[in-house]
Amino acid sequence: MTENIVTSDNFEEYLISHPFLGKPENLYNSMNYIMQLGGKRMRPKLLLLAHQCMAGTLTKDVYQLALAIETLHNFSLVHDDIIDNAPIRRGKKTVHEEWNLPTAILAGDNLLIKCYDLILKTSLPQKEELLNEFTTMAMQVCEGQQMDMNLPGKEHITEEEYLHMIRLKTAVLPACALKMGALAAGASLDKSDHFYDFGLNLGMAFQLQDDFLDCFGTAAETGKQEGGDILENKRTLLFLHAQQHLEGSDREELNRWYGERVLDQSAKINRVRELFVKAGSDRYLLNLKHEFEEHALENLEQACGQSEFKQHVLMLFDFLKARKV
Amino acid sequence: MTENIVTSDNFEEYLISHPFLGKPENLYNSMNYIMQLGGKRMRPKLLLLAHQCMAGTLTKDVYQLALAIETLHNFSLVHDDIIDNAPIRRGKKTVHEEWNLPTAILAGDNLLIKCYDLILKTSLPQKEELLNEFTTMAMQVCEGQQMDMNLPGKEHITEEEYLHMIRLKTAVLPACALKMGALAAGASLDKSDHFYDFGLNLGMAFQLQDDFLDCFGTAAETGKQEGGDILENKRTLLFLHAQQHLEGSDREELNRWYGERVLDQSAKINRVRELFVKAGSDRYLLNLKHEFEEHALENLEQACGQSEFKQHVLMLFDFLKARKV
Repeated sequence: MTENIVTSDNFEEYLISHPFLGKPENLYNSMNYIMQLGGKRMRPKLLLLAHQCMAGTLTKDVYQLALAIETLHNFSLVHDDIIDNAPIRRGKKTVHEEWNLPTAILAGDNLLIKCYDLILKTSLPQKEELLNEFTTMAMQVCEGQQMDMNLPGKEHITEEEYLHMIRLKTAVLPACALKMGALAAGASLDKSDHFYDFGLNLGMAFQLQDDFLDCFGTAAETGKQEGGDILENKRTLLFLHAQQHLEGSDREELNRWYGERVLDQSAKINRVRELFVKAGSDRYLLNLKHEFEEHALENLEQACGQSEFKQHVLMLFDFLKARKV
Repeated sequence: MTENIVTSDNFEEYLISHPFLGKPENLYNSMNYIMQLGGKRMRPKLLLLAHQCMAGTLTKDVYQLALAIETLHNFSLVHDDIIDNAPIRRGKKTVHEEWNLPTAILAGDNLLIKCYDLILKTSLPQKEELLNEFTTMAMQVCEGQQMDMNLPGKEHITEEEYLHMIRLKTAVLPACALKMGALAAGASLDKSDHFYDFGLNLGMAFQLQDDFLDCFGTAAETGKQEGGDILENKRTLLFLHAQQHLEGSDREELNRWYGERVLDQSAKINRVRELFVKAGSDRYLLNLKHEFEEHALENLEQACGQSEFKQHVLMLFDFLKARKV
């Protein structure tokens, strides 16, 4: 890598050429396995783009920061897959399936520590600020994950609680990535906070799109089980809104579908979808998503102004908006 | 807390008065639960003593460092208890038993992040150096734990491998604690390294004493199941040495006890103990432990010289040497 890199396309190449080295082998193999399973690499790309917006160039140190952000994301994937008892991730076995539970716990732990190692080994003058931002975000991700786990045990969930949970679990990570990229470029705190807000609103829109696709997308579009959240009786925003806005027998029916063991799964999915539509929950969610996107665009304008890199960010943005997967 | 603190006895008080605050409640309750289960608090005390040796006083920041070290220790306890499937810790339920596996994973994760938060929130000029030392140590602890897990699957284990494993899993943590205390007091790298070596040798002696007590201690002395390592067929240093030094039928008998399902557990413990003694493995281990202690004393001399605080360290040292538990 040289200091002349000016696109973010080669992050994947950087990642592949910088595996974690150490012993014992099975620990480091499991860490590199999850890192190299692929994915959109959205979070590190956002970090690199924010840096380019503010500084025009990229450096080895910024790639290392981007790798730290991707590593934090992978740490959370490894531990979340244990928590969710998930056998498959991106078409391959999850770490605890390919190795075992103890190794998956330790792989996650060591990935988390490696994030700090990566940031500490940069020679950026903003290192301490970056570490503070990173630490706050990492705590929030854990808190969000625990809040998500607590939801099924709660009698009543407000929409606000649900949105707060996805903000912590999902949105603060891209937000922090963008802010770190800007800070590392020497941006002011004000500017960097616009990047943060952009990422937060983008992340919220992203998660709402996820929820929408999970409910209304086809298996052919998403590559996932159709109506997975409905079958799991997950009280997503769609459900919370519908429960609030349906009346009488419709509301009772919705609660019945979520309360009883159902044999005809596709009947359940179809009928719950109809009830969501009747309550206007699909439009409500899409409107809310649209609002987050509008806010994100305002934030981007404040953050990037007329920078040529704004176009790259917008392309990523449009890609995320249009995605079905 | 004021800056006039000059003993390390009030660390427990400091810990109790500085619980981790945050939401959701069950996540933070589980973190504070393990932190407040008690224990000897040996690692933070060593950090405070090293600081006193070099600076004569203690500050709020140094207590915060000590809390970070104790927090790292507790992070590893929470995750190790999951890995070992342990139901009880210090006479109380382990975190995954009192809450559940997901909460225990997240509690450990968040404790690890809190360590960094605590160090970052000090205003020590050596902050970056401290973070580097801490990070290296934390990685080693994970590596050591994985190495320990890998041992049962290995056909052949050398004594060197076993000692390397306990060095990483157990000894680098007190070593790092002492070094951090010295560094925070403004000690030179040379001086700080003497503290590190003291902690490393102390930690090795400590772990060998643990292994000895597990084998030869009585349940009344240790409060634990007698001969636990033997019953689990753990290839500790005693076993590795005995296997190497017994001959003919004795060696075959030892391997038989470790290879077969045994109904008469106390017969197994007694006979394996006799074989260890016949091989001279008990004396070998105690000699090795003594060597580590001698090295530790030399290191302490180089580190502390004639400081009055050396006496405090020596008291802790004697306490650890004499302990049965």
